[in-house]
Order: sequence, then structure tokens, then C-alpha cells
Amino acid sequence: MSHKALPGFRDFYPAEYAVRAHITDTWRRVVRRFGFMEYDGPPLEPLELYTQKSGEEIVGQLYNFEDKGGRAVALRPEMTPTFARMVAARAQALRKPVRWFAVPQLFRYERQQKGRLREHFQLNVDIVGETDVLADAELLSIAIDICRALGLTRADFFARVSDRRLLNALLAHLQIDEAKWPAVYAVLDKLERQPREVSLDKLREAGLSDATCDAVLGFGALQTVDAIRAVYGASAEVSAHLDTFAEYAAHLDALGVGEYLRLDLTIVRGLAYYTGIVFELFDAQGEFRAICGGGRYDRLLLGLGGVDLPALGFGMGDVVLGELLKARGKLEAVAAEGADVWLVPHEGTPVPHVLTVASCLRGADVSVEYVLNAEKLRTRKSGAQLKDAQKAGARYALVFRESHTAELVPLIESALAPADRLLVDTSGWRADAPDAAALAPLLTALGR
Amino acid sequence: MSHKALPGFRDFYPAEYAVRAHITDTWRRVVRRFGFMEYDGPPLEPLELYTQKSGEEIVGQLYNFEDKGGRAVALRPEMTPTFARMVAARAQALRKPVRWFAVPQLFRYERQQKGRLREHFQLNVDIVGETDVLADAELLSIAIDICRALGLTRADFFARVSDRRLLNALLAHLQIDEAKWPAVYAVLDKLERQPREVSLDKLREAGLSDATCDAVLGFGALQTVDAIRAVYGASAEVSAHLDTFAEYAAHLDALGVGEYLRLDLTIVRGLAYYTGIVFELFDAQGEFRAICGGGRYDRLLLGLGGVDLPALGFGMGDVVLGELLKARGKLEAVAAEGADVWLVPHEGTPVPHVLTVASCLRGADVSVEYVLNAEKLRTRKSGAQLKDAQKAGARYALVFRESHTAELVPLIESALAPADRLLVDTSGWRADAPDAAALAPLLTALGR
Repeated sequence: MSHKALPGFRDFYPAEYAVRAHITDTWRRVVRRFGFMEYDGPPLEPLELYTQKSGEEIVGQLYNFEDKGGRAVALRPEMTPTFARMVAARAQALRKPVRWFAVPQLFRYERQQKGRLREHFQLNVDIVGETDVLADAELLSIAIDICRALGLTRADFFARVSDRRLLNALLAHLQIDEAKWPAVYAVLDKLERQPREVSLDKLREAGLSDATCDAVLGFGALQTVDAIRAVYGASAEVSAHLDTFAEYAAHLDALGVGEYLRLDLTIVRGLAYYTGIVFELFDAQGEFRAICGGGRYDRLLLGLGGVDLPALGFGMGDVVLGELLKARGKLEAVAAEGADVWLVPHEGTPVPHVLTVASCLRGADVSVEYVLNAEKLRTRKSGAQLKDAQKAGARYALVFRESHTAELVPLIESALAPADRLLVDTSGWRADAPDAAALAPLLTALGR
Repeated sequence: MSHKALPGFRDFYPAEYAVRAHITDTWRRVVRRFGFMEYDGPPLEPLELYTQKSGEEIVGQLYNFEDKGGRAVALRPEMTPTFARMVAARAQALRKPVRWFAVPQLFRYERQQKGRLREHFQLNVDIVGETDVLADAELLSIAIDICRALGLTRADFFARVSDRRLLNALLAHLQIDEAKWPAVYAVLDKLERQPREVSLDKLREAGLSDATCDAVLGFGALQTVDAIRAVYGASAEVSAHLDTFAEYAAHLDALGVGEYLRLDLTIVRGLAYYTGIVFELFDAQGEFRAICGGGRYDRLLLGLGGVDLPALGFGMGDVVLGELLKARGKLEAVAAEGADVWLVPHEGTPVPHVLTVASCLRGADVSVEYVLNAEKLRTRKSGAQLKDAQKAGARYALVFRESHTAELVPLIESALAPADRLLVDTSGWRADAPDAAALAPLLTALGR
């Protein structure tokens, strides 16, 4: 038999699962601080849910098939269509703004490349029903707070932010035909990654004059509201969008994350999708792909779900983020944890007494292990059982002495050593009615 | 566009997600008390992983297809084959006993019936590398502790337990041909659910004498070790297995869960699979299918993974368990929670100050909401914003007064009212450097 997962799929052994849980737990903890509620949908959906949004060409990247009832179905490649379907189905009843998040596993049949997986976990955070730029500011501050909660600082990452409306106003002001905008967006999107001459050629091919080409190629250097205003402030429309952007920046300052913001007109993202402020979080050293991307998509719910509600959201995957955290040394303390307490019986300790002590501690939410074999529990030397405990990564051993007393012994560095040698009298402990007073000193010593 | 999930698949709106999270969080919390570590595998696996264990006939119940690389694949219908694959791949290196758990979503193309879903979440708890009956006792005590942690008591559920080795010894003692055992097992499995005459006919068809039929039909009434010993104690083999079962029962007593145990020889479970003690948890009122099932499967890893290690485990799904919890009123307090604190600005409160206070509180892991629109934050009457907070289910409002003070007001019954009217001075709060001393009284009032 094959001892391997499918190519592009991951086995999560406890060590790898601990990293995944560290990331997803942090996602949940931070997003909840902002009052968001978790939802989920099916990992398998009707195929048309995706082709309706992205066209038939997406099918080539999907895990799609016909189910036994003859339905065309696909493993979800993204969460937004499910989100749109669910919001649309209860659009009237839902309190606005809707503030929801999800942590789905997503699937794409990508061509196999180094580091490219065919599944990943992705945090999706969305707000529906609010047009004000304060919602945009709150959304970005969530993404930034997550990265900070994971230990990253301004030296590690920043946010590149643009506004599709501002960009449109600039192109309109430069009198570029709307039919040419997609070509211009495509050039802007690659401005930092391709030689200036290539960009210039493509703009010329699109039919822009040399002066207009120069102006567009200069967008990358305009990295503040003031810089854009100095050149294009004469346009009332541009000026109005700059005012909005300045308000956005002021909200981010008040939310304590202003230093992460970089206005960057070369951030474009999905053409047919976004309608307002768009953003991506990037590794400051430029080693990795974007950590996160999102923005305002005010027309998508109408197209996908048939309800006309403004919306904005972002997605953050576990793979690039995990690579960045690892490269920056932020995962070194993350590991599958051993038990809080390992029980080491004395030669004369009856097995039922060991089990009773285990049960009492577990009842207080302390994780407890011991040698899972009655004969060994009775006969294996205490020293050998203490070594079992150490190998298993237990924080403490509870070493039974004579007359039903037991001593708490710290085993790993991060375990707090009790101020004095802690001897507990366990003689009165009962599994069916744990004695809180008898347990208390032990729980205190364990830092509970 | 269709506004529905596929038949048999669930949308989890926040209210339904809260129930799912209540169950899965409790699973994780309790299983960790026993020192188990979480793992996961891919939801999509090679088809042969399942046909190898269950034969080609399982394909009719699977979501299987050919992927774009021509591989025969299937959505996982159960976790054990993945578990076996992962353990086998690192069998040498893993510390024994392996104590792992997982909470996978599983998929079966079941014929649509009332309440039958095509996906569910299932806790899988497994121990590998220990033959002693103490491991069997620990395993059952985990399943029982989970149900207790969810609020169920001895009045709500109990465990039916048998031992395949004991049953085999009884059949051997009755001199029933081993070739007839599968037929006898099939009758035992349905003993409680089909009329005695039907069972009798089937045993006669299998070629059992009338006296032997009577003996087998009497198995259901033998519900204690002593009762079985009284009839079959003369067999040394039966007697040895009864000793083991008595030891198992004693361990469960010491672990504080002995009262849940009922010896029941009609619990059979998978024929080709289990080799020792097997168990199922049942609703005491007999309304629902089994909540949970498992046991010892000492030969499965050899067959599936090519490593000869003893093993035992159980699976517990979220669907039947959820139905039982609901029927017994144990989900009434479970709901998607509103924010801890809703900020209600005074007419003169500057918006940046509201955002700064939000940011400071969120930095202390307090969840905070406010009206997500700067204009409304400035102009909407405090009374109306307080109503927003109540509708959203916030626990407290922090109502801004003049001169940067704010009052904490409890909004829901379960919120602790501060002993005195709590007025906080927020004038010195800064988002980039929250002042722990300034926050402290508020955190104390919030029960942090």
C-alpha cells in the first residue's frame, strides 16, 4: 500500500498540527476581538457556484466531478461564493453590518511547483452592509493585528494599499479611454516586477501617448496622499478620493496601526471584483508572496447572490504566512505540548489510587499521563517512569511517596518550580467527588 | 443561481457554528486532559486507501472521482485508514503508546433519509502500542468524560461493552463451528431489535442445535461478570477473559466512571475489524442511534499499514450527539456570542478617541464593537447606539461621558454588574502604548 498523501496535500503530524493550530487559533482570537462571528459552509459545492463568478476557465483549476446523483460538484477553491450564497439567502434577516469570519480548507488543482500546495487553510474576514471608509480601516487593522499577534513587527511586514476609485479617477484625468484600463491595470500590477521598458512597450501597445505612458509609469513613485495631490490635485474627483484616503489613514492611526500603511498605486488585485480600497500585506524583506489580500467589492454580492449590499473582506492563507513566521524565527516556541503532569507511583502505590489522582486532576482540566499498563505501573522503577515522563515532554512529574503523599517535580525549563518542595496529601481524593480544597495547592503550583 | 448547499451538506450560520464549536471545543479540551495530541490528514486520499480496508463495495458509498492527474481519489469516509498510513510511515520513530486524536470532517454518499447527512465531523481518539486493558479503560473513560463535560449524566447515557475474545471463547465453549460465528454475530448484533423468533430461525438456519440456540439467545440476559461466570465459569478460557473484564471494570471504577459500564454481549461491531473489548455509548432513553463506538483492533494496522502494533480507538460524530444534547436541553445556553464591550460615544467624543479606546481594549483581548460608520459615530444619539449594542447582544456598553470619562454599563443578564458604577478615565489612553494601569479597573469589571 502507498504510504503517502496525494501530491500537494499535507499530513499534519502533531508537530505540524501544532504550527497550524498556532496560526488558526491566533486568527480566531484576534478576529473575535473585533466582534466577528465564525461561520462555515460545505467543502463541496455545486460547480456552478464557481463558474458563475469566475467563468468556465476556472474549471481547469478545480477538483470537480459528477457525484452519484449526477450533480456537477467541486471542492471549494475559495470561500467568497459560499459566503455570498449564505448572506443572500438570509439578506433581510441578518443584522447589518454582517461581521463574519471563517477558516475553511480550500482546494485547487494547481500545477505542481516547489512549495505550491493543492490545499491550504485560509482565514476569510468579511463585512457586509457598510460603505463608510471606517469599515475599510477596521478590516485592514484586523489583518495587521493578526500578524502582530503572531510576533511580526513593522520590521517584518507592511501593507500596500490602493483605491480602485482613486486609480480610475487618475486614469480618467489622464484621459485614458476606459477600454484601455484593463491593459493599464495589468502593467501597474507588474510594475515592480518587470523592466521599465517592457511596461513602456505594453502601454504603447495599448495606444497611450508617450506623455501618458510617463505619467502611468510614475504612479509607483507617488507613495503619499500629498505626493499625488501635488501632481493631480487639480482634478476634483482625484482630490475627493484623496480626502477619503486621508480619512482612512487617520482611522488607521487612531487604531494604532498607521505605521504599517503604504499607499501604493501598483496594487491592483482582481479586475472584475474590487471596487474601492484594496490591500495586500507583504514581507518587508521581499522574500515571499503576499501574506494576505483583500478590499472592497461592493458589486459582487449582487452578481453572485442577487442582493445589492456593499461588502469588503480579505483572505489570509496559512502557507505563505507559515513560511514567513518560520523564516523570522517566530515558530521556535511552537510545539505539540506534553502533559501537564505525569504520575510516577511509588513501589507500594495501588494502581486504583494512581487512576483516582489522575481523574481528580483531569476533572480540574489538568492534562495527566502515566504508564498505560497496570503491570508496569506497579513494577517499573520510579526512576525509569520519571524518564518516561521526561521523554514525553511532561511539564511536571507527581512522584508518589509513602502513605499517599506525592511530590510535584518540575521537568522542563518553562515549568514553574514551586517555591517550596510541594508535598500533597492525596489520601482523601475520590474520583467521584473531587475535593477542591485538597486539589487547590497543586493547581496553584501548576499556575492555574 | 441556486441558494442552497448540496443535499446532505450543512451551512453553518453563526448560531449553528456556535453549537458545532461547543461540541468540537469540548472534544479537544477533554481529550487533551488525557495527554493526547491532535493530528490531521488530507480530506482527499487515494481511493485504494479505502478499498484496501473495506473492499470494492465501499465505493458505492464514497465521493470518489478521477483527478486531473488521472488518480483515483475519494473524500475521506473515515479517519482510520489515514491514521494507519501516518502511523505506519513513522512507526519506528514514534513514542509508544501513540496517543493521538483528530476532528476530521468525513463524507459518505448515503441514500438521503431523514436526518442522514452526507458529511459530519467525527472525533477520532486512538492509542497504538499498548496491549494492557488499562489502555482500554482509559479510552472508554475519555468518551464518557466528554459526554459528562457536555452536561450529560448517568440518567442520559451509558456504555454497552463487550469483549470479542470473551464472545469467541463462549462460542468455542458451546462448540459452535468457527465458520458459523459470523452468522451468530449477525444475530447477536440485532438481538434487541428483532423478534426472538426471527433470531431463532436465523440461528437454526446456521445449523445450531436447539440447546445451542437457547444458549446464544440467553447471552443478552448475562449482564455481569458474575452472571456469565455462573453459567460458563467452567471454561478456563472464558474465565480468563472474565478476569480481564473484571480488571477493566475496576480501572473504570478508579477512574470515576464505573457507574456508566454495562456488560452487553450483544455489542458486536465490525466483524473483520475488532479483536478485543468493544463499546458503544447509548442514549439512556433509547431514542437515538449510538453516540459513539470503538474498541480494540490489534490486527488492523498490520493489514492497513504493514506494521504489527496493537491499537484501540473510538469515533464520536457531531450529529447524533448534537441531537441528544438538544433533546436533553443541554444546548440552550449555547449561542454565537456578542462583543464584550460596545462603545457608545458622547456627542462630543472625537472618532479617533473611540478608535483608540477600542484598540487598547482589543489589545487586552477584549472584543469590542461600535457603529462602523464615522458619521453615525459622531451624530447618532447615544440612546440609539445603546440599542444597537443591545440588538447585537453585547455584554456591556462603554458609554462615553464628557471630559474623556466613560461608564461601563451591563447590557445582558449574564454580564456581571460592577459593584459600583464604574467610571473610567480614558484621556491618557494611547493605541500604540496601552497603559496597563489605566485599563486594569475595566478589565477587572469585565471579569478578566
